[in-house]
Amino acid sequence: MTSSDSTKVETRLHVESPLDGGTAVGLDPGRAHFLRSVLRLQPGAVVALFNARDGEWLARIDALGKGWCSLEVLSQRRVPGPEPDLWLAFAPIKRARLDFLVEKATELGVSALHPVMTRRTNVERVNLERLRANAREAAEQCERLSLPEVAEPVKLDALLATWPAERRLLLCCEAGPAPALAEVLAEFRAAGAPARPAPPWGVMCGPEGGFAESELDALRKLPFVYPASLGPRILRADTAALAALACWQAWLGDWTLRPPGRG
Amino acid sequence: MTSSDSTKVETRLHVESPLDGGTAVGLDPGRAHFLRSVLRLQPGAVVALFNARDGEWLARIDALGKGWCSLEVLSQRRVPGPEPDLWLAFAPIKRARLDFLVEKATELGVSALHPVMTRRTNVERVNLERLRANAREAAEQCERLSLPEVAEPVKLDALLATWPAERRLLLCCEAGPAPALAEVLAEFRAAGAPARPAPPWGVMCGPEGGFAESELDALRKLPFVYPASLGPRILRADTAALAALACWQAWLGDWTLRPPGRG
Repeated sequence: MTSSDSTKVETRLHVESPLDGGTAVGLDPGRAHFLRSVLRLQPGAVVALFNARDGEWLARIDALGKGWCSLEVLSQRRVPGPEPDLWLAFAPIKRARLDFLVEKATELGVSALHPVMTRRTNVERVNLERLRANAREAAEQCERLSLPEVAEPVKLDALLATWPAERRLLLCCEAGPAPALAEVLAEFRAAGAPARPAPPWGVMCGPEGGFAESELDALRKLPFVYPASLGPRILRADTAALAALACWQAWLGDWTLRPPGRG
Repeated sequence: MTSSDSTKVETRLHVESPLDGGTAVGLDPGRAHFLRSVLRLQPGAVVALFNARDGEWLARIDALGKGWCSLEVLSQRRVPGPEPDLWLAFAPIKRARLDFLVEKATELGVSALHPVMTRRTNVERVNLERLRANAREAAEQCERLSLPEVAEPVKLDALLATWPAERRLLLCCEAGPAPALAEVLAEFRAAGAPARPAPPWGVMCGPEGGFAESELDALRKLPFVYPASLGPRILRADTAALAALACWQAWLGDWTLRPPGRG
C-alpha cells in the first residue's frame, strides 16, 4: 500500500460508510443507478470509494441490481491528510450561477459553504440538497477526499456574530478603500512559502448588487475582516468569489502540492 | 469632464462608432430592441456608450422604434487608458462551460481569446459569434472599455508556431513536474508591485482530458512557456483557466487599480 497508487478505476464515489480492507459497502439507490445504468458497470469492476476520515480505497462491485449495489473494499489507495480550512460565505445568486459557484469552490478546496442573506440578496430560497449534490459531484471529479460542509443560510449579522475570532475573513470589496488582494495575501504568506497547514480563513462576497453601505461599514469594523480589492473591473459575485479563492490557495493554501499520482 | 463621473446611466453599450460630443450614433437592431423592449427606455433616457479607442461617453436617446435607435453623444465619462495585454488560449469545451469561461475571462481582463484544438479536444465546432456576443455582454457589465478579440480556432502547433517570442505563456499543468503558480508569478513581479503596464502574457489550459504527453513535452521545450502547478486537486479546464487568470491579474496585472468612480 502506498499513499497514492495509479490503478485505473472506473469512477470515484464519496461514501459516508467506514472504509477498511475486506468490509462490505452498499450504495444508495442514486449511486447504484449511476454505476449500473450510466457507467454500465458489471460485477468485478473496480471503483474508488473515499471519505475524509478513511482516505481513498479500491473497491470491487460484488453484485448490483435495480437501485442497489454492494461492493467489497480492497486496499487503500490514498491515506487521509490535512486539507485547507477555507470557508466561503456567499450571498445566494441565481440557480445556474450558484451551481457553478459551488462546483468551482469545491474544486478550489473550500471546506465549508455558508449561504448568507444580505440586504440586497434577492434570492429567497436556497436548495441545500442541490448544493450538497453539486459539491459531492465536484469533489468526486477533482479528487479531493473531503466534501465541503454546506451550512444553513443565515443573515449576515448572525453569521458575523458567531464568526470564530481566529478565522480571518477576506472581504471582496468593489467599493470604498481597500488594499489590492495581492498585498493582503502577501502580508500573511510566510517568507518564501505558505505555512502548512494554513491557519483558518474565510472568503466573503456580496450579492449581485453588492453589499449595502451599512453592511460594508459594519464588516470593516470587525478585527478579523480584511477588505481586499479585485481590480478595476466590476466582477460578478461568482467571479469575485472564485478569483479570491484561487489567489488564496495559490498564496496561502496548498497549491505547492501536486495531484496525487501525477507529479 | 473628468476621467470618471458617477452620473447614473441606464445601461452601458459597446459601439464601434466613433464617440465624440455632439455626434449622432445609431444602434444595430438587437441593441435597439434591448433598449426599447427589455429596458423599456424612452427618448431622453441617458445611457453610456464606450469603446477602447474613445473611452466612455454619456449619450441621450433621441428617438427609437422597432429595431432602430438613434442617440446623441453628450460628454465623456471616462478617458481611454491602457489595459492588460493578456491572452487566453483554451481548448473549446461544452457550450454552457464555454459561455461561462468567456464571460469570466472577459471580466478578468483578457485581451484576446484563442480557441486552440489539441489532441484530446472533442468539441469540433466553435460558434465564434456566440463567443463574441458573450464577451461583449460581459465587457458591458464589468465596466471595461475594450472587448477581448476572439480569434479563429487553430491547431495547437499552428498557434505555437506563430506565438510572439516576447509573449510569455503560463501553462496550466496538472501532470508532470511544474513549480507552484505563486512561485512562477512571484519571479516576474517587480519588487513590491507589478510593473505598469505589464509585459504581454498568455495563459493556456488544455481540454477536459488534459494535454497529451507529446503536447506537454513540446510545450515545455519552448523558451516562452512557463509551466505552473495549480495544486493537488484536478481542476476542470474552465476552473484552471479562471484561477490562473485571476492570479496573474492579482500579481502581475492591474488589480492595484480600483473600479472607476468607486474608490
